[in-house]
Amino acid sequence: MKELSVNHLLGIKYISEEDIQLIFETADHFKEVINRPIKKVPSLRDVTIANLFFENSTRTRLSFELAEKRLSADVVNFSAASSSVKKGETLVDTVNNILSMKVDLVVMRHPNPGAGIFLSKNVNASIVNAGDGAHEHPTQALLDAFSIREKLGDVAGKKVVIVGDILHSRVALSNIFALQKLGASVKVCGPLTLMPKHIAHLGVEVEPNLDRALAWCDVANMLRVQNERMDNSYFPSTREYVQQYGLNLERLQKLNKEITIMHPGPINRGVEITSDVADSNQAIILNQVENGVAIRMAVLYLLASKIKNYD
Amino acid sequence: MKELSVNHLLGIKYISEEDIQLIFETADHFKEVINRPIKKVPSLRDVTIANLFFENSTRTRLSFELAEKRLSADVVNFSAASSSVKKGETLVDTVNNILSMKVDLVVMRHPNPGAGIFLSKNVNASIVNAGDGAHEHPTQALLDAFSIREKLGDVAGKKVVIVGDILHSRVALSNIFALQKLGASVKVCGPLTLMPKHIAHLGVEVEPNLDRALAWCDVANMLRVQNERMDNSYFPSTREYVQQYGLNLERLQKLNKEITIMHPGPINRGVEITSDVADSNQAIILNQVENGVAIRMAVLYLLASKIKNYD
Amino acid sequence: MKELSVNHLLGIKYISEEDIQLIFETADHFKEVINRPIKKVPSLRDVTIANLFFENSTRTRLSFELAEKRLSADVVNFSAASSSVKKGETLVDTVNNILSMKVDLVVMRHPNPGAGIFLSKNVNASIVNAGDGAHEHPTQALLDAFSIREKLGDVAGKKVVIVGDILHSRVALSNIFALQKLGASVKVCGPLTLMPKHIAHLGVEVEPNLDRALAWCDVANMLRVQNERMDNSYFPSTREYVQQYGLNLERLQKLNKEITIMHPGPINRGVEITSDVADSNQAIILNQVENGVAIRMAVLYLLASKIKNYD
Repeated sequence: MKELSVNHLLGIKYISEEDIQLIFETADHFKEVINRPIKKVPSLRDVTIANLFFENSTRTRLSFELAEKRLSADVVNFSAASSSVKKGETLVDTVNNILSMKVDLVVMRHPNPGAGIFLSKNVNASIVNAGDGAHEHPTQALLDAFSIREKLGDVAGKKVVIVGDILHSRVALSNIFALQKLGASVKVCGPLTLMPKHIAHLGVEVEPNLDRALAWCDVANMLRVQNERMDNSYFPSTREYVQQYGLNLERLQKLNKEITIMHPGPINRGVEITSDVADSNQAIILNQVENGVAIRMAVLYLLASKIKNYD
Repeated sequence: MKELSVNHLLGIKYISEEDIQLIFETADHFKEVINRPIKKVPSLRDVTIANLFFENSTRTRLSFELAEKRLSADVVNFSAASSSVKKGETLVDTVNNILSMKVDLVVMRHPNPGAGIFLSKNVNASIVNAGDGAHEHPTQALLDAFSIREKLGDVAGKKVVIVGDILHSRVALSNIFALQKLGASVKVCGPLTLMPKHIAHLGVEVEPNLDRALAWCDVANMLRVQNERMDNSYFPSTREYVQQYGLNLERLQKLNKEITIMHPGPINRGVEITSDVADSNQAIILNQVENGVAIRMAVLYLLASKIKNYD
Repeated sequence: MKELSVNHLLGIKYISEEDIQLIFETADHFKEVINRPIKKVPSLRDVTIANLFFENSTRTRLSFELAEKRLSADVVNFSAASSSVKKGETLVDTVNNILSMKVDLVVMRHPNPGAGIFLSKNVNASIVNAGDGAHEHPTQALLDAFSIREKLGDVAGKKVVIVGDILHSRVALSNIFALQKLGASVKVCGPLTLMPKHIAHLGVEVEPNLDRALAWCDVANMLRVQNERMDNSYFPSTREYVQQYGLNLERLQKLNKEITIMHPGPINRGVEITSDVADSNQAIILNQVENGVAIRMAVLYLLASKIKNYD
């Protein structure tokens, strides 16, 4: 049986194109499973998974939890709010404690970039990064690329523009890595104050003009505007942002082609995207959500297979 | 097989007497199930249910969760505290996201009256209203009527008085609809400032005097005094309330009959009801709680049957 | 089949040596179970357990939850934060409500000493005390003694020193009872302001000097310094505490023997224990955590057996 080259999913940067293709093929199978009347398989009934969320997250936690339950894994949830982390315990001690209770896999969201990488070097369990600060959010990038492949047949050769606050977005960074490994061309579009300095080193072109970006692309991935960051002087006002970077029907109708619209959610309707666009047939936003469960089932299944040596 | 006339349980107002009777017959069966050593049936093992609680609730959430687990459904919980609702997402977007993860049924408590009705028109899933503001709390009314039927043999022809703050009570409104559909006579009793203006249109008589109300009724349903509302000028002081509307043993002993005492919980002992009354044999308060699990199993089972076309 | 002499686990004070030995023998079996690929047994699939945590706790709650799931029990969680306790409901009413939903066993953590004892006299269910104020934490003491037995072959005849704030520690009190019932000698060590007045009546000697305590003992159980209590005038400063009661490698190397180091967690590295000691081979801290799941499985299994009359 084919297996992943890694024991953890810490970031798209650390996996190969072959890994991604294997995850996609496995997710194809699980997508069928979750569309059957009985949406469950007994694959991981001998696996215990702990979801450690040191940052609040509804959709990502729910998506992982459903993926785990549909694989028949035993699931325990841990959130920072009630955690012993507050009592002065180190992250490694917290996780080692949980692992001593015979947990096989840890899904972790953490505010610090690199928290998952640090952990993977210091504890003896398989780690899935569910978002680490502004660093990576690998399962989001995998479900995004999987959704492009589903909609357009393939990722290779496609032109994708990511629009918004690239600087603070783990979704953007993971998407760039995934799309490039799969052979897509990537541009980013957004206010120049919100572009990371190293963007050129990533082989990604900055297109500050949204209309030119849309004219170029096959797919536009509209990042969520984080209102909580909007009072910062580096950010434009919401009104300016909508004017320059908000996707609306008028902008789409000027194109003589139909592009695919993506959004990682939650949507600020009327800010980065208008309602008519979000609800149009060009948008695959809810497909992304559905594919998220299948992708996470695939990632968890493949990592568990390496631990358990299923055959 | 008989089935419900509706695809959602949004309120007692929207279901027929036949629906209620079908729910009761189904709950009779599930009440046997939860009194067996193995309190579980595999009926909904192919169904995923999301409990969306936009308002805190212990007993209702626990009751639904136990009902779901005893039907072998897969359950995910979502509470407003950690939700993306805070991030500016609309209710329809939040629910559509959850549904895209292949959720079949949504149980929702929401502070806004009509939230469930609005949702049922805008998303593609079966909705159970677990309380929407001061509007309806249909499963509470069903378990109340079911408990009267269990204690007194039938609901038809019985005289029921609901005592307390009728104006702000979704329990009162749902109870009025349920009892009337089942052929009971209903009066309400409480401070006139806490009576809804439309009460006469509902065919319900207001009896401001508790002793006269008790002399009339077979069943007294004592609503919880919501201390958090007590500082409002429309409300009497706690001391005045206890004097005029508090149920105590002295009041009961003046009657030359034994009435049935109900309370939706949580009880403020010594306010709307004294401890000796709450703990007496006339009180069926804990039976109500027990019946709540059976009623919720019945509602979820019957709604799922419509989706899945079991036979 | 042998069974416990009690229907609840309220404290080590209330159980016999035979009870402890029966729990250990049962835990030996479950420890094998949780080290198998499939860490689950169907023993309690007809049992519903409610975890009522009126105080935050990560590790204890997770450990109980995993124990329950590995016994195939149905589990519902209840935390004080969202509870109806806030709405003025009494503890007995809260628990009776939950029990009316056909819950068989209640695991409860509560800030009030004796809360479990009070409850056991007023409700009709089996209660496991998961910590009641500064009173007892019996499953912690059981897992500690079980870990000593595992490491040193037996508890009888061993010398154990408990180091730290004995006055406020339920772990210390439960450990004293358990170790004495099993035939160990116990001393306590720590600032005299943090010693309970009744300590002499427990047959426990106070040794204020850590080096002398270490020279005497086979096992040192280092309690967590509760930083949140440190601003109190009865407490030494952290710097003073570390100097006088902090366990470090230097202190261990002065001994001409290898003692066993325990800690109930969460660890304040560099305060009550240095990192080199916590991570050394003499420390059995993570074994304690692992054994906690087996001990809790044993306690729950044995209590459920009394309810259900398994044979």
